[in-house]
Amino acid sequence: MPPVRDLPIGVFDSGVGGLTVVRALMERLPLESILYFGDTARVPYGIKSVSTIEHFTAQITDYLLGRGVKMLIIACNTMAAVASGVVKARAGGLPVLDVIEAGARAAVAESHSGAIGVIGTPTTVNSNAYARRMHALDPAVRVYSQACPLFVPLVEEGWLDHPVTRLTAQEYLRPVLAEKVDSLVLGCTHYPLLKPLLQDVAGSDIHLVDSAITTAEQAAQRLAELDLARRGDTLPDYRYVVTDIPLRFQTIGERFLGRSLGAVEKVEW
Amino acid sequence: MPPVRDLPIGVFDSGVGGLTVVRALMERLPLESILYFGDTARVPYGIKSVSTIEHFTAQITDYLLGRGVKMLIIACNTMAAVASGVVKARAGGLPVLDVIEAGARAAVAESHSGAIGVIGTPTTVNSNAYARRMHALDPAVRVYSQACPLFVPLVEEGWLDHPVTRLTAQEYLRPVLAEKVDSLVLGCTHYPLLKPLLQDVAGSDIHLVDSAITTAEQAAQRLAELDLARRGDTLPDYRYVVTDIPLRFQTIGERFLGRSLGAVEKVEW
Repeated sequence: MPPVRDLPIGVFDSGVGGLTVVRALMERLPLESILYFGDTARVPYGIKSVSTIEHFTAQITDYLLGRGVKMLIIACNTMAAVASGVVKARAGGLPVLDVIEAGARAAVAESHSGAIGVIGTPTTVNSNAYARRMHALDPAVRVYSQACPLFVPLVEEGWLDHPVTRLTAQEYLRPVLAEKVDSLVLGCTHYPLLKPLLQDVAGSDIHLVDSAITTAEQAAQRLAELDLARRGDTLPDYRYVVTDIPLRFQTIGERFLGRSLGAVEKVEW
Repeated sequence: MPPVRDLPIGVFDSGVGGLTVVRALMERLPLESILYFGDTARVPYGIKSVSTIEHFTAQITDYLLGRGVKMLIIACNTMAAVASGVVKARAGGLPVLDVIEAGARAAVAESHSGAIGVIGTPTTVNSNAYARRMHALDPAVRVYSQACPLFVPLVEEGWLDHPVTRLTAQEYLRPVLAEKVDSLVLGCTHYPLLKPLLQDVAGSDIHLVDSAITTAEQAAQRLAELDLARRGDTLPDYRYVVTDIPLRFQTIGERFLGRSLGAVEKVEW
């Protein structure tokens, strides 16, 4: 067993979306090794029931704990919204971060008006998890949420700057923008790929909160606090474990990661 | 054990889409009982690998055979495209129908020019199953296929007649229409809900082949040939088994079925 400091950070998601968090971690913490788990055989979680999501989340957590990690990052808004308790209960003393906590913190810290918009999958929005976490940090904020179920398939189709995507974004954002929000949380790991288009539709005076970036920032802080940051000058190790390797996996994965994917391992359950 | 004639027809799909086939069966064969299985915990199949789809298909087939059915209908284009052999191998002598076979037969019979378009999910289109089956029936037909990955999420969003859907359809259908097809096979059970919009975009001189309707027609023929049609005047029994009951399941299911869903049973695997 290597020293805890040299263990990888475990990052997991229902599919490829969490690779936007891996990308942000690689940039913010270039010495850290990363073990990514994507449940590509059962993606998407956003349309499944809470009990099913809890069951899948527990399985993934146990798998990563079995492989050995020093920190767990829930890089899936749906799992963070409805099953973060499951992860914490199984993780023992291990630090557990998630994209909702990180996004909520950053939005509350950065909003001037206190009116904050949140966009995400139907399950994330219906869970009301962002609003609850933001209110715990500042009871004065007003949160306006909007489910955007078509954004994930549009990103996976690669229509990142397409008239269909623009028209869809105009329709989805209209009610949130009408509330005069000054910040908009991208509450799904797929959405950072739509950032230029969403900034354009929302207008340049609205601050977009990218939870991949805010999660990487929180991870850096926690590793420093716990004295768990990796040292030395050897190259970090990046591993990708998935439950299925579907068509176009490499292409889509590399679009999220912003670089080549390296070796992908398929686990049989 | 009731007489074989009184057993239900087993219909299965990766999710709710196969309910368009159930609807067509209820209308064409109003005396038949139906046992529907939707794998809602693992939907969609269209983005998964062939080996994963085969594994899931075998599980569902065995479940329906265990419950007792007189015929199996694969109401999922993805399963029909890549795993119909798995179903037939397990079904023994039981008749097995599928939406691709039915759609291919109808398209070949009805096309005058021999130029036929097929739209479906990426897995269905990449499998080339429609083209293979049509060529087996008539080697002279020319088949032009187009994957339309956004249609399923658009239908599930309920945007059946929305500018975004229209723009998407125009983009997807352009290359197929350029080939001067006279028939267009709706190669996914979600697509019948887009029929009015697709007819409008394609133009009134293009014949849309709805595989839900053609499958029900084939089922009626096979039951008559095998002398397996149910008789008498007692009401048929409709049962719906799913692996998960997600958010909005009832709403979406009833949109596909065109009537109220009745009791839904969740199976635990």
